[in-house]
Amino acid sequence: MTSAPSHAVMTAAVEAYVSAFDAGDAAAAAALYAPGAVIEDPVGSPVVTGEGVLALYANAMTRGLKLELTGPIRTAGDSAAFPFRIHYPPTAERRCIDVIDTFRFDAQGRVIEMRAFWGPDNIQFSRENQTHA
Amino acid sequence: MTSAPSHAVMTAAVEAYVSAFDAGDAAAAAALYAPGAVIEDPVGSPVVTGEGVLALYANAMTRGLKLELTGPIRTAGDSAAFPFRIHYPPTAERRCIDVIDTFRFDAQGRVIEMRAFWGPDNIQFSRENQTHA
Repeated sequence: MTSAPSHAVMTAAVEAYVSAFDAGDAAAAAALYAPGAVIEDPVGSPVVTGEGVLALYANAMTRGLKLELTGPIRTAGDSAAFPFRIHYPPTAERRCIDVIDTFRFDAQGRVIEMRAFWGPDNIQFSRENQTHA
Repeated sequence: MTSAPSHAVMTAAVEAYVSAFDAGDAAAAAALYAPGAVIEDPVGSPVVTGEGVLALYANAMTRGLKLELTGPIRTAGDSAAFPFRIHYPPTAERRCIDVIDTFRFDAQGRVIEMRAFWGPDNIQFSRENQTHA
């Protein structure tokens, strides 16, 4: 087993990830990744890598997405897992999505693999909200 | 991509998993797994498989562990991820652990891979509790 970063290092990376969304800063989110890192979002879809990483976050920031952690960050070995809710702008049809991400880190504390667990049943739509209002 | 079980099937398996702990039923927990399934608990430790699966749950049930889901079950492709808290009996030194598990399923809805994300920083001890009391 290669040396893994500490809980503090992995937790700081997750918090920097949330902050990048707060600031709408795609480059800050992409900078958490090592070269050659792969993103599978959602799990089961084709992986994104290389220049696709920054493009993915540029798209998310343009759409005004914000992340809210909804529980403690778990760390194990070279990995972290964290539950959060994605909030959309009030004008969007999607209201929020409940997601769990896993980050796998290299020894330098850079993310080498991200996997996002969420599906259609984890999305709440504004329409549903209106129906229940 | 092989056919994945539905959100309902994967969610039911997670709920059955929690119920198995409620009932202290190790066989019920182990029965959710396909033959040859692998458990990595925590992530980064040697995998458990075969007869080790039932032994793992027999040990957990003997210790009186209970699971409480602490957020929605996420499903994506052939996988589920869920946040929960493990509660220990009042007599135990460990009070609780915050964990995220991921389950990967085969087409029949049986778990073929479980990975548990938790580490020392996710454990709360009774001693700490007393210190703060």
